[in-house]
Amino acid sequence: MGTTNRVFNFAAGPAVLPLPVLEEAQRDLVALPGVGMSVLEISHRSKTFESIIQECEANIRKLIGIPANYHVLFLQGGATLQFSMVPLNMLAAGETADYITTGSWSEKALKEAKKVGSINIAFSGKAENFMRVPKASELKLTPHAAYVHLAGNETIHGVEFHELPNVGGAPLVVDTSSHMLSRPIDIGKYAMIYAGAQKNMGPAGCTLVILRDDMLQKAKANPAYEKLPIMLQYGPHVDDKSLHNTPPAFAIYIMNLVSRWLLNLGGLEAMEQINLRKAEKLYAEIDRTGFFRGHAKKEDRSRMNVTFRLPNEALEEKFVKESKAAGLDGLKGHRSVGGLRASIYNAFPEEGVNALVAFMKNFESKNG
Amino acid sequence: MGTTNRVFNFAAGPAVLPLPVLEEAQRDLVALPGVGMSVLEISHRSKTFESIIQECEANIRKLIGIPANYHVLFLQGGATLQFSMVPLNMLAAGETADYITTGSWSEKALKEAKKVGSINIAFSGKAENFMRVPKASELKLTPHAAYVHLAGNETIHGVEFHELPNVGGAPLVVDTSSHMLSRPIDIGKYAMIYAGAQKNMGPAGCTLVILRDDMLQKAKANPAYEKLPIMLQYGPHVDDKSLHNTPPAFAIYIMNLVSRWLLNLGGLEAMEQINLRKAEKLYAEIDRTGFFRGHAKKEDRSRMNVTFRLPNEALEEKFVKESKAAGLDGLKGHRSVGGLRASIYNAFPEEGVNALVAFMKNFESKNG
Repeated sequence: MGTTNRVFNFAAGPAVLPLPVLEEAQRDLVALPGVGMSVLEISHRSKTFESIIQECEANIRKLIGIPANYHVLFLQGGATLQFSMVPLNMLAAGETADYITTGSWSEKALKEAKKVGSINIAFSGKAENFMRVPKASELKLTPHAAYVHLAGNETIHGVEFHELPNVGGAPLVVDTSSHMLSRPIDIGKYAMIYAGAQKNMGPAGCTLVILRDDMLQKAKANPAYEKLPIMLQYGPHVDDKSLHNTPPAFAIYIMNLVSRWLLNLGGLEAMEQINLRKAEKLYAEIDRTGFFRGHAKKEDRSRMNVTFRLPNEALEEKFVKESKAAGLDGLKGHRSVGGLRASIYNAFPEEGVNALVAFMKNFESKNG
Repeated sequence: MGTTNRVFNFAAGPAVLPLPVLEEAQRDLVALPGVGMSVLEISHRSKTFESIIQECEANIRKLIGIPANYHVLFLQGGATLQFSMVPLNMLAAGETADYITTGSWSEKALKEAKKVGSINIAFSGKAENFMRVPKASELKLTPHAAYVHLAGNETIHGVEFHELPNVGGAPLVVDTSSHMLSRPIDIGKYAMIYAGAQKNMGPAGCTLVILRDDMLQKAKANPAYEKLPIMLQYGPHVDDKSLHNTPPAFAIYIMNLVSRWLLNLGGLEAMEQINLRKAEKLYAEIDRTGFFRGHAKKEDRSRMNVTFRLPNEALEEKFVKESKAAGLDGLKGHRSVGGLRASIYNAFPEEGVNALVAFMKNFESKNG
């Protein structure tokens, strides 16, 4: 099974996975060693699957340093279902939740929360087309907010919180889908983290939720909680260790292989150094002459999704077309921002960044 | 890559998949031919994935014969989320829905529906420990019910509707998770079908929904609809062709391979003949001497989940242990029914049934 036929995949998600993970999954796909069944076929109640999900949770706890008062859940429905589950569980009648919006994803979260209860927009980057995160002084926080919600990284606009804002002790609920496990996480600062797997952790179909126990207890005390669909209550997922119903077993299996890969690499500190190096190389090329222009404000640039423009749309189209032909796939920006976007998640190889930088230099010399 | 190391997998779900499907998925796991990326890594907005999901829908439409006024959706959350989505979308204030319960799954659906609105239990098999489906004369139907809900096959009790009950023209909503695509489906009799993939269609993580358009329009007219979480409204999934958010792409890819396998086999008529043959062989052995006793009433026996008892629990334990050692995996019955259960879904090979029958004969001769 050759691997030389692989291209560089700059897609925003689902996104590139570590090659050793794919190779191990391939080797064992028809029958797990010593089990005689594919991981696609085994019961979620089997000892084999139990050991997979338990190891995956243990590895994630180890990578992040998650203490015992946080629950680690493997759910379905993507971050989009969390946009609803968070307020349905945690925003009781009479309370207000604060939302900070810095791009399309936090806007979507806001829209779902508004269906549920009283929401205060603590900051909106919309008028500036989401090119930065707020300064602490700009936040209009509600005293005693039920929680403050933000998206740690915005894939479409390429804007990232490099530090969490000071929200005055309010519980912080963060969508980290697109930069999860890309750097160390100071877990004590979060009341809840949720992340779709399909950027840094695995294939599409699983959502990792890390939930502090006091938030769960608060949810259970919400009078509306009992009437929620059972799949939308956090409690049964906690009680049944993510096996309340059949979980997305294959996605969890791949997440476990990815968690092992991260531990072998040296953990999140080591991963961060690699990600920093990749992002700095690419932004250095963007800033070199002015031919390319970054979308986000420099200090808020995403290390995961590098968004940039060319002098005009015709050149942008040409860039997309020629880069694809050169084996650099998925560089077209999202239609709402335009231009180019290079998603360089954890598993994206540094050689791919080097190849893109070389392509950019060459493209500029021909078209600049 | 040997396949001789595979055991016979009688698990109730996730369950056995066709070996040629596993082998094709294995071959292409690191890079889809001509694409250069794994199916685990490609964007759900890519042409490659679009062609996968479109072919999968077309194949399922062809297999069942689904007309244009039904939508075919690939969702997340399993049948369990549908237990809630059905009443949330389709049971408006002032209406009543009828529920027929014939086992654990229809009981769970009932429990979720009760959270939403007015429910009438048209039949409950609970007092008889769910060993049969109702006769038409036993149904206590509500005039002008919003819909009638039932589970076509119950995995735990091994009870199956071989014909749909006459519900006097009310819209029929059926959980077909555990016998989906096991036999021809007279689609015109259903207002909605839903089925978790992990028994007959693919790995865990995807739910197939087939929804008649008038039910969607009725849902949209329900005043409560606008406030539902976007992931729980059928409309956005229909409008965005199951790509409202990132779908469980790998599960859909496998479902597409399974749909091709079914078409190559000759479609649902051919599949039914194979399933009939497998089930008849196994039930014939159960009935041969009286040493084994089937749980379900003969005429309502499931072709998918064959539930049976031995003379005592000690022998049942011995049977489970010795059968496992003989390469027959997953025969222990669900704790709520006890005894043995052989799940023999579409992809379960006839050789495996032959092996079980031989094992049963031998076990009886030693212990009978």
